[in-house]
Amino acid sequence: MMPAGGGAARGEALSTLRGVIHQQATKAGLADLFGQADKEVANLSPWQKANLREMRREYVRASALPQKLVEAMSRAESQSEQAWRQMRPNNDFAGFVPFFREVVRLKREAAQAWSDKLSLAPYDALIDGFEPGARSEKIAPLFARLRRVLPGLIAKVVESQRREQTATGAGPFPVERQRYLGLELMRRIGFNFNHGRLDISTHPFCGGIPSDVRITTRYRMGDYTQSMMSVLHETGHAKYEQNLPADWTSQPVGLARGMSIHESQSLFHEMQVCRSRAFLEFAAPIIAQAFPEAAASVPEAFSPENLFRQLTRVCPSLIRTEADEVTYPCHIVLRFELEKRLIDGSLRPDDVPEAWDAGMREILGLTTRGNDRDGCMQDVHWPAGLIGYFPAYTLGALTAAQLFRAARRALPDVMAQIRRGEFGALDGWLRENVWSQGSFLETRELVERATGEPLGTEAFEQHLERRYLQREA
Amino acid sequence: MMPAGGGAARGEALSTLRGVIHQQATKAGLADLFGQADKEVANLSPWQKANLREMRREYVRASALPQKLVEAMSRAESQSEQAWRQMRPNNDFAGFVPFFREVVRLKREAAQAWSDKLSLAPYDALIDGFEPGARSEKIAPLFARLRRVLPGLIAKVVESQRREQTATGAGPFPVERQRYLGLELMRRIGFNFNHGRLDISTHPFCGGIPSDVRITTRYRMGDYTQSMMSVLHETGHAKYEQNLPADWTSQPVGLARGMSIHESQSLFHEMQVCRSRAFLEFAAPIIAQAFPEAAASVPEAFSPENLFRQLTRVCPSLIRTEADEVTYPCHIVLRFELEKRLIDGSLRPDDVPEAWDAGMREILGLTTRGNDRDGCMQDVHWPAGLIGYFPAYTLGALTAAQLFRAARRALPDVMAQIRRGEFGALDGWLRENVWSQGSFLETRELVERATGEPLGTEAFEQHLERRYLQREA
Repeated sequence: MMPAGGGAARGEALSTLRGVIHQQATKAGLADLFGQADKEVANLSPWQKANLREMRREYVRASALPQKLVEAMSRAESQSEQAWRQMRPNNDFAGFVPFFREVVRLKREAAQAWSDKLSLAPYDALIDGFEPGARSEKIAPLFARLRRVLPGLIAKVVESQRREQTATGAGPFPVERQRYLGLELMRRIGFNFNHGRLDISTHPFCGGIPSDVRITTRYRMGDYTQSMMSVLHETGHAKYEQNLPADWTSQPVGLARGMSIHESQSLFHEMQVCRSRAFLEFAAPIIAQAFPEAAASVPEAFSPENLFRQLTRVCPSLIRTEADEVTYPCHIVLRFELEKRLIDGSLRPDDVPEAWDAGMREILGLTTRGNDRDGCMQDVHWPAGLIGYFPAYTLGALTAAQLFRAARRALPDVMAQIRRGEFGALDGWLRENVWSQGSFLETRELVERATGEPLGTEAFEQHLERRYLQREA
Repeated sequence: MMPAGGGAARGEALSTLRGVIHQQATKAGLADLFGQADKEVANLSPWQKANLREMRREYVRASALPQKLVEAMSRAESQSEQAWRQMRPNNDFAGFVPFFREVVRLKREAAQAWSDKLSLAPYDALIDGFEPGARSEKIAPLFARLRRVLPGLIAKVVESQRREQTATGAGPFPVERQRYLGLELMRRIGFNFNHGRLDISTHPFCGGIPSDVRITTRYRMGDYTQSMMSVLHETGHAKYEQNLPADWTSQPVGLARGMSIHESQSLFHEMQVCRSRAFLEFAAPIIAQAFPEAAASVPEAFSPENLFRQLTRVCPSLIRTEADEVTYPCHIVLRFELEKRLIDGSLRPDDVPEAWDAGMREILGLTTRGNDRDGCMQDVHWPAGLIGYFPAYTLGALTAAQLFRAARRALPDVMAQIRRGEFGALDGWLRENVWSQGSFLETRELVERATGEPLGTEAFEQHLERRYLQREA
C-alpha cells in the first residue's frame, strides 16, 4: 500500500526499531538473570522451563550479533528490497546485483557470528532462525528423495491430465463477489473476525498478532480461484495464530513454533482439506451462489467434480507462487541448493542467474535464460535478506500431509464431516496437537507426538499419488 | 480498520513504544549535551539555533514527566478510548465516566508537572504541547469576541438562507466515482502521489510522515459533498507535510509548526479556497463529469452557483465535525471553557453532561439533555486524553482567514487563477510563508511575518460577512 516515495523513511524506521529491540534483547544483566534462572530451574513448571529455553534461544541469537551489524543488515535489506521492486519489472539483474552482493556479504557475516556462538554450520545457523532445530543434513535426504521421485510423477500426471476436460467458468468475477466468497469460506472454516480482518495487497500474506491477525489476498477479475485458494491458505496461518495458548500470549513459548509448522497449517487447510473432493462438495454451492450469473451460464463449471479437476491441475512453470502442489517442491529444492552455496561461498551472487537456469532445466525442464524476472529475481526473500527460509515451505508440505494422515486415523469420520462443512472435530485435533502447543515442544517432538513418526516424505508421496494419479481424495 | 478484539494489544504496544521514546528523549547525558550546545551557540546558523530551541522544548517537556506517568497515561487513554467507542453508541456516559475520571486525573497530574517545570498555568502547559507558545490569556479574548459576534451573525444568515433555493443532486453517488473525484481534485490542487495515498476510515484524518502522507475519507452514497470536502480539507494538511523543509527532515525544526498552523492549512484549502465561488467555477465541470447520470438528470445541481449555496449552508447543530464554517467556532468555545475547568478542578468529569447542555443552550440554542452521545461524548479527543487540543481548530480558522487575506493582497490575480484551476502562485506563497518554515519561527512570528499583523478575529469576521451575508467570494 505504501507509495514508492515512502520507502526510504520506512527502511530507516524499521532499522531503528530493530536496533531498539536488539538493545533490549541483549541488555547487560540478562546473562546474570539467565544464570539465576538456571539455579531455580527445579521450581519451574514444564511450560516455564520451555519458556526459559525459548528466551535463551532468542537471547543467544540476538547477543551473537553486534548492534551495528543488525542495523546495517536491516538497512541493506530495505535498500535491496526496494531496488528489487524497481528492477525486477525491467529484468535488470545487473542493476540489482550490487545490492544483492551487500545483503549476501552481511548475511554471511551474521551466519558466521551465529555459527561460532551456536556451534552450527553457517547455513544451519540461518535456517535455525526460521525453523529452530532444523538442520540441512536432515533436510537434504528428504529433498533428495523428492528430487528423485517428483520428475517422474509430474510427467505421469501431466500425461494423464491431458485427457481431462475442465471448464473454468465464464468471468468476469466481480471483486466484491470474490471478497464475499472469501469472507464466507473464512467464516465457515473458523476464522475469528473479532480478532482479524481480510484486506488486499500485491502478494497475499498473514501478519499481525494473535489478537489481531491480518490476512490479505489479491483479486483477478478473470479467475476467482486464485483469491479463493489464497484466502484459504492464509486462513490456515491465521487459525494457528488465533488459537495459540492464550495463557502465554507475548511470551516466547506462546509464539508459533516455527516457519515449517506455520506453513504446515496453511497447507493443511489449502492443500490437504480444501482441494479435496470432500471439501469441494461442501463448497461448490457456496461458490456458485457467490457468482450467480456465471453459475447460470456455465453450471458445469461449478460442479464438485469440475472444481476438483480445476484446482488440482499440474503444470511445470517458472513461478513458485503460482506452482501447483506437485511441482512446488521442485522450486524449493532448487532454492535450497543455491542458497546453501551462497552462504558457503561456492556460489557468487553474480553467478546466480546461470546456476538458476541450469537448475530449472535439470529439475523442471524449463529455462530462465535471459528471463531473470521470472527466474532468480522472482521472489522477495533473498532481496529482503531471508536466506534459510525456503526449506520451511516444503518441510511444511511434508508435515501437513503427515498431520492430515494422522488426523484421519484419529477421526475416522472426518472426511464425511468435511463434506458436510463441519470442522469442529478436525479443529479440535489441530488445537490439541499443534495450536495449543505454541513453542512448548521442539518441532521434531511436536511432529512425532502428533503423528507417531519422524518427519518423512511418505505421507506426502502417498497423498500425491492418491490425488493426482488415482484421482481420489 | 482494527478488529475490536485487537484493541488491548494495540494499547499495550503503543504504551510500550511511548515508554521507549520517552526513555530516549530523557536519557542521562542529554542535559550535559544541551549545556555544551549553549556554549557553542555563537557558531550555530539561525536554523541550527531554532533546531536547538525545538530540541530543548521537547526535552524539557519529556523530562518533566516520570516514565511511569507516561506509560500510565498511555494505558488509561487507550482503555478510555476503547470504552468510549463501545459506550458512545449506547449513550452510556455513566459507564464511560470511570475511565474518563482516570484520564482527567492523570492529565491533571501531568499538567501540574509541566506547570512546575515550565512556569505556566497547568492548562496552558497542556495547550503548549499541541500549539507551542499558545496561552489561554491570549486565546480567551479572541474566543470571547467570537462568542459575542457569532450568535447574531448566525441568526441573520439562517434567516436570509431561508429564501435560497438549493438543489442537492440525485444520488446515489457510487463510492468508486466519489473516490475518482477525490483523487482528481487532489491531483489538481497539488497532492504528491509519490509521497502519499488516499484511503478509507471511519473518521477522516491525515497521518504519516512527510515522505508518506496518508489521508483518509469516508463515503456516504447519498451525499458526495462530504467525502469531497473532507478530502480537500485533508489535502491541505497533506500539502503542508509534503512541503516541509527537506533539508531538515526528521529534525525537530523540520516538523510542522503546531496544530493551529496545521489546521490553518487544511482550512485555507477547504474553507478559504475550495468553498469560494472562484474554485467552484473551476470544480463544477469536474464534479459533473464524475457523476454523469446525476448531472444529466438534475443539471442545475452542478452549477457553480448551486454548489456554492449547497456548500455554504449554515445551520446550528449538535455535532462539531458536521458543523458549518460559521457555527463551528461555537463548538470550540464551549470545549475551551469546559476543559479549562476540568483541569483547574472547578468542573468534575461527572458533571460534564450538565455543563455541556447548559453551554450548548446558551451558545447555539440547542439542548443535549439525555443525549450525551451527541453531546459531551461526541468527540474522541477527551476520551483519548487530548485536552488542550481543541482551541487549535478555531485558532486555525482565524489564521487561515488572515493568511488568505494576505495572500490575496500579495497576489492580486489569485482569484482569477483559482477560477482557472491554477494553484502555482498560491502554493508558492504558502510554501514561502508557511510550509518551508517548518518550525523555524514561533507561531506568533510566523503569522506576523506572513500577514503583517498579530492574530485577530477581524479577517475571519470579514470573510464570514462577505461569504454569508453579502454572498460574495
